[in-house]
Amino acid sequence: MGTGRLEAFSDGVLAIIITIMVLDLHVPDGDAGFGALHPIWPKFVSYVLSFIYLGIYWNNHHHLLHVTRRVSGAVLWANLHLLFWLSLVPFVTSWVGENHFASAPMALYGFVFLMAAIAYYVLQLALLTVEGPQSALASALGTDVKGKLSPLLYLVAIPMAFVVPAISGLLYVAVALIWLVPDTRMERAMAARREPSS
Amino acid sequence: MGTGRLEAFSDGVLAIIITIMVLDLHVPDGDAGFGALHPIWPKFVSYVLSFIYLGIYWNNHHHLLHVTRRVSGAVLWANLHLLFWLSLVPFVTSWVGENHFASAPMALYGFVFLMAAIAYYVLQLALLTVEGPQSALASALGTDVKGKLSPLLYLVAIPMAFVVPAISGLLYVAVALIWLVPDTRMERAMAARREPSS
Amino acid sequence: MGTGRLEAFSDGVLAIIITIMVLDLHVPDGDAGFGALHPIWPKFVSYVLSFIYLGIYWNNHHHLLHVTRRVSGAVLWANLHLLFWLSLVPFVTSWVGENHFASAPMALYGFVFLMAAIAYYVLQLALLTVEGPQSALASALGTDVKGKLSPLLYLVAIPMAFVVPAISGLLYVAVALIWLVPDTRMERAMAARREPSS
Amino acid sequence: MGTGRLEAFSDGVLAIIITIMVLDLHVPDGDAGFGALHPIWPKFVSYVLSFIYLGIYWNNHHHLLHVTRRVSGAVLWANLHLLFWLSLVPFVTSWVGENHFASAPMALYGFVFLMAAIAYYVLQLALLTVEGPQSALASALGTDVKGKLSPLLYLVAIPMAFVVPAISGLLYVAVALIWLVPDTRMERAMAARREPSS
Repeated sequence: MGTGRLEAFSDGVLAIIITIMVLDLHVPDGDAGFGALHPIWPKFVSYVLSFIYLGIYWNNHHHLLHVTRRVSGAVLWANLHLLFWLSLVPFVTSWVGENHFASAPMALYGFVFLMAAIAYYVLQLALLTVEGPQSALASALGTDVKGKLSPLLYLVAIPMAFVVPAISGLLYVAVALIWLVPDTRMERAMAARREPSS
Repeated sequence: MGTGRLEAFSDGVLAIIITIMVLDLHVPDGDAGFGALHPIWPKFVSYVLSFIYLGIYWNNHHHLLHVTRRVSGAVLWANLHLLFWLSLVPFVTSWVGENHFASAPMALYGFVFLMAAIAYYVLQLALLTVEGPQSALASALGTDVKGKLSPLLYLVAIPMAFVVPAISGLLYVAVALIWLVPDTRMERAMAARREPSS
Repeated sequence: MGTGRLEAFSDGVLAIIITIMVLDLHVPDGDAGFGALHPIWPKFVSYVLSFIYLGIYWNNHHHLLHVTRRVSGAVLWANLHLLFWLSLVPFVTSWVGENHFASAPMALYGFVFLMAAIAYYVLQLALLTVEGPQSALASALGTDVKGKLSPLLYLVAIPMAFVVPAISGLLYVAVALIWLVPDTRMERAMAARREPSS
Repeated sequence: MGTGRLEAFSDGVLAIIITIMVLDLHVPDGDAGFGALHPIWPKFVSYVLSFIYLGIYWNNHHHLLHVTRRVSGAVLWANLHLLFWLSLVPFVTSWVGENHFASAPMALYGFVFLMAAIAYYVLQLALLTVEGPQSALASALGTDVKGKLSPLLYLVAIPMAFVVPAISGLLYVAVALIWLVPDTRMERAMAARREPSS
């Protein structure tokens, strides 16, 4: 089975998740001055961070499936499992934003992304089972330093939210920055194969 | 007529249905402790169950159309009929969650999925009419034990909701578990045909 | 320019329009009996009718673009114009349902679909300009009896909403029934060309 | 890497942005007369303008990627950056509509579209880096008068919103009109290459 429809469905779900978060940005009725924007800045900040995280997931998902040729039933479910955790992002983003980065919401924010990171790892394993250890995918994934570092940072950030929530926030920003550096592993693996077109 | 756009439209609708359900998860304003999550656990549980159900439908739909080559006008309408019943899932999920698995919402939940199961069966018939009894689809569907068992379980669960709603809930979970076992009929049928690519 | 991305974007917009209407179905808080469903039956009826209408539009749009090979800038805008009127369907559906099929909402409902019908006609003209009078599209469209009859029925139904709204409602149902009969013109035109695949 | 999935994701996000704006059109409960529509006309006008703007972006994005053959990691992020600013359109549209084109909302409306215009320009640069100065894209973009004029008009309109908001509104309409003229540069560039199909 090819990857086409898996990609299309994932794109659809990610596009909706990334977009419906904006429904949570609301200016109080009847206030037409810039001051009305002040109370929603925590919502806006959490929106921007979640937008970047979801962009990273879309980006990595795109790269991952680009070096994949076939999917199995296990891959379909591993992908749905990932989408499930990502579907909770608008909920935690809203809770964080409404409560100005309070401890419990900040910890839950990290937990949802920790689960998403685990789900992404499981998806990689499911794809590797289909593709085999000699595949372009296997060589492209390599040691996967970022994929192993991110969950560790979440594991530090979650308890830290109950001590100094701001440090949790900085750790979440740090994870995003780590991933914003383009994933050249995949691009190198593809270049090495000199694919004629995609 | 090919299946491409039918799949694309169905993916879009299913992606939206599965994602907008999360808009119903809301923490009471101004409560930033984990205690705030307690009142929404029934909503969360019904969200998880509906997410799995919709994932199963997407998965089966994907497999079904993968062994299909052509669609007719009747198939387009049979597909829209299925999407109609699935579009009601966010509504019943919300009603079930808000009322902590009360009798009437639990019965309606089963009714909507019963109608969806019937609609899926009708879609299979419409596809078989186009593909013919010698097609890969016909041999892939075979005896369709799961497709016949699920409506029976719904028919038990719906009246049971007025006696012991918890048993209805267990039956809904049971149906989901039955389907979570991968549908190997389709994969075997495809392997038998040794399709070069998809 | 091919039709692929035009179809994908239209599918996305139509999938969202058809699905977000369900967000308007809400059971009053804290009422867990079937009686709670009674006040929302007008919303449900208008939801079903609009779902069918949008299904018809998707279906016809699918057929229309299936016999089209190329699109122009004018076609892109004619298509967006159609999507604009259809994007207002959730709004009028909600207004009709909340006010139990009162005169003004029923008239506006007809007006939005009248404008959508005109937009669809303009889209056909724009496509014919690209495809030419000898194209499969031109022969497939033929005399287009349904496309000419629907606006006439809307033109009767709109003023009728201020006399007997129920008759307007019956006329809207009648238009839907006319279109539910499959559009065999397109299928015949395609069969005549014996396309090897699509 | 090909442009297929980038286009699919962008189409999904743009389709959702353009459609969820309609959720903001609400008639006051219990008012079934045409008078109920009067208070929402500013919302409707801002909806129409934003719909046209987003249609222009989709249209230009479609043309831009049509003459593009490959994308890089930088292109993916430049595209997400564009989608981020466009995702704020429902928010500013709602704020403008609720406050009847007041100064601060009108200025913010221009600011969001100014940032989107800059993001679109950055996306063009990222694509040009991949495609090279001899590409069809480079010749198609040419002097890009519209792309340079629009930000200038926004830069005039934003401060003008605090003097005469109506003039800002007229400038926003003017930008839309400039773009509604089809972008024949791309179509000419494609015709020059006589692509057999797309």
